[in-house]
Amino acid sequence: MSDLKLIEERHSHGGVQRVYSHWSHACQCDMTFAIFLPPQAANGPCPTLTFLSGLTCSHTNVMEKGEYREAAAQHGIIIICPDTSPRGDDVPDEDFYYFGKGAGYYLNATQEPYRKHYNMERYITEELPNLVSEHFPVSDSKDSIFGHSMGGHGALTLALKHPDRYRSVSAFAPICNPMNSQWGKHAFSRYLGANTPSWRTSDAVALIEDGSRVAEILVDQGLADDFLQEQLMPEALAEACASAGIDLTLRQHEGYDHSYYFISSFMKDHIQWHAERLKR
Amino acid sequence: MSDLKLIEERHSHGGVQRVYSHWSHACQCDMTFAIFLPPQAANGPCPTLTFLSGLTCSHTNVMEKGEYREAAAQHGIIIICPDTSPRGDDVPDEDFYYFGKGAGYYLNATQEPYRKHYNMERYITEELPNLVSEHFPVSDSKDSIFGHSMGGHGALTLALKHPDRYRSVSAFAPICNPMNSQWGKHAFSRYLGANTPSWRTSDAVALIEDGSRVAEILVDQGLADDFLQEQLMPEALAEACASAGIDLTLRQHEGYDHSYYFISSFMKDHIQWHAERLKR
Repeated sequence: MSDLKLIEERHSHGGVQRVYSHWSHACQCDMTFAIFLPPQAANGPCPTLTFLSGLTCSHTNVMEKGEYREAAAQHGIIIICPDTSPRGDDVPDEDFYYFGKGAGYYLNATQEPYRKHYNMERYITEELPNLVSEHFPVSDSKDSIFGHSMGGHGALTLALKHPDRYRSVSAFAPICNPMNSQWGKHAFSRYLGANTPSWRTSDAVALIEDGSRVAEILVDQGLADDFLQEQLMPEALAEACASAGIDLTLRQHEGYDHSYYFISSFMKDHIQWHAERLKR
Repeated sequence: MSDLKLIEERHSHGGVQRVYSHWSHACQCDMTFAIFLPPQAANGPCPTLTFLSGLTCSHTNVMEKGEYREAAAQHGIIIICPDTSPRGDDVPDEDFYYFGKGAGYYLNATQEPYRKHYNMERYITEELPNLVSEHFPVSDSKDSIFGHSMGGHGALTLALKHPDRYRSVSAFAPICNPMNSQWGKHAFSRYLGANTPSWRTSDAVALIEDGSRVAEILVDQGLADDFLQEQLMPEALAEACASAGIDLTLRQHEGYDHSYYFISSFMKDHIQWHAERLKR
């Protein structure tokens, strides 16, 4: 059993919000994650739902501002909030908010100097769920997954690449087609190299075009989001889903921006959506 | 009409979360406050509920972590979140988290060098509600008030001193008897001078003992709160209310601490409690 170090514990909404750190084999550094145990977890196992955060975030942003605990307590779901990248002084980085630390893109880097630490796909799909199952009362070998912006990209790509790992997937303002966005080009060229075809397995739209499938996707998108046109591209996801026969529910909201004020407004809907699918 | 400067605007939970700054005559400095306009405010006037924050906070803490917007939107209540003290380079301060900037104690200072700026009682009970009524669709000349810790002290004392201003009062982990706490003694001696009898009009327990009345009070208190015994003293409030015939609902919660994880857990209950009384 791997060692978990308890960093923080708070009673909230009838359950317990905790933060742990642990040595990550995938990322070759200490990693931190938040986990909310709903009241039901004191009496028996519960399903899990993982929230992947966006650029510049750690586990703390959604833990403090995401307003997920009430709905998680209502539905009896464990919420797992990982960090967004490897961390530490020896982890290579660049001085951009959209690359490096805080911007791991939930992929396994193949290029130097990033491939030693930047293995967030392996961390999120294998190491972290195994660790959580070892230490907490998890009822289901499958997780559900959602996320925001870069974390929405992570949720979509990981669900498409690992359909046996996840029961359901949703996203808030996801980066749908990073291969064609400035953020994504910057990150993929460094993590994955200049070989554009290899980028397709880290891009939700390209994965769908190339045959990856999930049954259905829920996406909420604010129409006053500053990143909508140039970085997020939900219309490309909608086209790919339509062609592939994927049941995409894309809800667009006048006036809403890219912030946690937007995320928290629709958090309850997403948790209920996953709860219905986790309990089928 | 006084000038309001819009600092921030976010759509959230069907309404709009805004932050404004303005020149304060009471505090002789620029002051900042947050205001949430529920969806109902787009169609007509709504009642107001003011949240007073605790030591070290500004308007941002509860705005980001308080989880009040869903219930406010449900009940159609405008939520006002003021700052906790005057601000600015020429505002006198001390290097304690429990005094000076971020710690105005919602009183009018009588002592130099504090009396020019530290007039939070006048700001909260007169200037800010007048400003809000000028600029926003407020349905009721009376406000309701609640708060946390030092802001719970503020809510209790202001409601007791100004019973015609407030329809209802509640608090999360309030400082109930600051005259007898280290924090309160430090603050009152500087803001109000060494004359202990003058402290009684800024202390909820003493105000009740001396004849001030409200009909009822709701208080939530965590039993794992580090400040419970030495700073908060809810048992003194309970005794004073029992003697005075004030209907105090004091709910004590195993495991909960002094943080926003505690506040957010019971926020919905408080907003519903005020909603019932605002609409009577």
